[in-house]
Amino acid sequence: MASQQTRPARGMRDFLPEEVRRREYVIGVIAEVYRRYGFEPLETPALENIETLTGKYGEEGSKLIFKVLRRGEGESSGETDLALRYDLTVPLARVVAEHRGKLPALFKRYQIQPVWRADRPARGRFREFYQCDVDAIGSKSMVVEAELCAAVSDVLVALGFTDFVIKLNHRRVLTGLLQAAGVAAALQGPALIAIDKLDKIGRDGVGRELAERGVAESAVTKLLEIFHSDLSIERARESVAGLPDVVGAIEDLTQVLALASETSAAPHLRFDPSLARGLSYYTGAIMEIAVTDLAGSLGGGGRYDGLIGMFLGEEVPACGFSLGLERILVVMGERDMFPASLRQTSADVLMTVFDAQTVPEAVKLAAELRRAGLRVELYPQPDKLGKQMKYAADKRIRFAAILGTDELARGEVMVKNLANGTQRSVPRELVGAELKHAD
Amino acid sequence: MASQQTRPARGMRDFLPEEVRRREYVIGVIAEVYRRYGFEPLETPALENIETLTGKYGEEGSKLIFKVLRRGEGESSGETDLALRYDLTVPLARVVAEHRGKLPALFKRYQIQPVWRADRPARGRFREFYQCDVDAIGSKSMVVEAELCAAVSDVLVALGFTDFVIKLNHRRVLTGLLQAAGVAAALQGPALIAIDKLDKIGRDGVGRELAERGVAESAVTKLLEIFHSDLSIERARESVAGLPDVVGAIEDLTQVLALASETSAAPHLRFDPSLARGLSYYTGAIMEIAVTDLAGSLGGGGRYDGLIGMFLGEEVPACGFSLGLERILVVMGERDMFPASLRQTSADVLMTVFDAQTVPEAVKLAAELRRAGLRVELYPQPDKLGKQMKYAADKRIRFAAILGTDELARGEVMVKNLANGTQRSVPRELVGAELKHAD
Repeated sequence: MASQQTRPARGMRDFLPEEVRRREYVIGVIAEVYRRYGFEPLETPALENIETLTGKYGEEGSKLIFKVLRRGEGESSGETDLALRYDLTVPLARVVAEHRGKLPALFKRYQIQPVWRADRPARGRFREFYQCDVDAIGSKSMVVEAELCAAVSDVLVALGFTDFVIKLNHRRVLTGLLQAAGVAAALQGPALIAIDKLDKIGRDGVGRELAERGVAESAVTKLLEIFHSDLSIERARESVAGLPDVVGAIEDLTQVLALASETSAAPHLRFDPSLARGLSYYTGAIMEIAVTDLAGSLGGGGRYDGLIGMFLGEEVPACGFSLGLERILVVMGERDMFPASLRQTSADVLMTVFDAQTVPEAVKLAAELRRAGLRVELYPQPDKLGKQMKYAADKRIRFAAILGTDELARGEVMVKNLANGTQRSVPRELVGAELKHAD
Repeated sequence: MASQQTRPARGMRDFLPEEVRRREYVIGVIAEVYRRYGFEPLETPALENIETLTGKYGEEGSKLIFKVLRRGEGESSGETDLALRYDLTVPLARVVAEHRGKLPALFKRYQIQPVWRADRPARGRFREFYQCDVDAIGSKSMVVEAELCAAVSDVLVALGFTDFVIKLNHRRVLTGLLQAAGVAAALQGPALIAIDKLDKIGRDGVGRELAERGVAESAVTKLLEIFHSDLSIERARESVAGLPDVVGAIEDLTQVLALASETSAAPHLRFDPSLARGLSYYTGAIMEIAVTDLAGSLGGGGRYDGLIGMFLGEEVPACGFSLGLERILVVMGERDMFPASLRQTSADVLMTVFDAQTVPEAVKLAAELRRAGLRVELYPQPDKLGKQMKYAADKRIRFAAILGTDELARGEVMVKNLANGTQRSVPRELVGAELKHAD
């Protein structure tokens, strides 16, 4: 069947013009805000040497890497030498090692590119999707965390979000609170898995699950007391008073909150002791964006001082944030948040073609209108005017310009407003400026 | 060696910030001009089902396709089920078949995305590179050819090129001229290969090669007379007067030239009877951009009515143009054609940090300056001011803002111009507007 053969590959998507405009709009806002914070763009190749990615994503992750067959004589052996980019962090680490001499001591980069994962496709989960990463490499200052929260807030506000919360926690605070409640080190991992379900199954559910996972009753009681999002950072500090390094982590968070209070992140940032965010590589603050009525997050990040130096064999301080472009697009679509202008076609005006004789004049007027700053689609052949008008209406082009023999003789152009059906004759030398300033 | 492991894969490139800015600048100009002509953006996945690409690029091409291993149990067998996009034309044909009901009768799209080819890397030849395609699907009118030439001219002029020529020919005119000169059908292919070398080996060289390839002496003489770029279209018409369908093709070209004469393409478009452009899939007009002192072209295109319908099993009229982004970037770099602004870093101002106590004030002022429309990089920690200034100078940031204890007390900000070393104190409420309007 033709329809079978022409579908995009499983888990992948074709983006028709309106969808591309939406994607470019959101990407443009993100990049523009990041640039305002002094972040610079980086791009890396879609394909990496397979060794670059091997062993970087755990057992589960490595199953999802798309591997590329070695070209040439090796082809029949099934040998692979390249793999598709799985995230933007490992390539960043590679770039930091490879181009170290050329990069500033504090390297602030954003990177907005697709990644590929051979995941089982599901609603909202694709095998090709964009990541929007922003990272500051080279500083341990909490100013970095505060600025990242501010930048992400500015992005979301610029896109029209008002109801988001940036949850803030710290890897060491999280384990410190468990420790203070009396959960043994071996049970901390399982306990976190239970606590992470607070939003889904509620306090009672979490309590039952903690007990099932072997956490002592006294510890469960303390945990349920500690892990609710209204716990103030002062109370958290009291809970961990006996653990000096945890107190230090609390102080880092206090500093992030104080610094961010001078920025646009202030109304959105909130300490949340239950935020876990997969602990594997974070070493300090962790952040996650929650939006009302959306399960899951719009993005998240944190400090990960151990990862970027992986190719250098030394620790390089790093803190970053990753926005989920695909999810942002879904939410914005559901909430009808895109500017109406994106719904329009690429053209402001359809330049119609009256008859075979006047084609050169239509070509000429189209060029004039473009010079006046208009986006002009020139209808290519002298079909019936009604057909041309229907074409313009179907493409939601707002105006049609008609240059018939009469108009030509009078030095005028007939301009039809396709939204309300009105039309009037305009002197040719004025038509560009007039259409340019039509609302 | 670390340096071995951290290099990008063979034939692929990392793009550091300045290079990304250059690429985005050129892509932005191309997209902006194409939109002005009513073309709309399309994006397709990097990976296609392998059957979609198989048999579409000839024997040589199919060797260069990167194939992706099937995931899951099939992995060990070396079986492949996906392949990386090799060009933007086959995906366009697939999209036209798949989304036919949703696309307008005349589908004008541009697509600017990377493609991958396992070619032997060489100077200016990469295994990952961008194509910039623009195509109009659904009309046989010569208006399409004329508009494409105008759009491409506008792109090149907007990028700063002045010395380019768009060569124009027609597949049938080319073979018609050979036929008229008395070259038998079987020798037309070899003869074209020789004629295609006119720029490289000159008329005498081509004459010798034609003879070697078995073209009769009388035909060689006629061919050398015909195939020089000064042959007027009127003379070409006379040469093929006895071949009605070739006369028709000449008339098409005459029409393209007449229509384009009303557009920005007029000073650049030139009939060139020797333009061949790999005849395989073109069915009508062919175009190619030549620039003085550059071997090879900046792009090319033509009419290919047989290709887009490949998945539909019917003929769909199509005409397009492809710009060579990588080559345009190389030429613009060699000729120093990029705007100076691209050389600057992402930030207009470095907000320095005076000491630990004033960090929150620096964060606050950075936020104020951003609200005033400036791109501000906030230095993250209270290093010595000299070190911060050096950082700004290295990144070519133009201004540094200093907020010391004295300035804070006076409600002022010290602004240092890093280009000329001058500095002066500015009332805090004015500093945003002042820096925004500094040249």
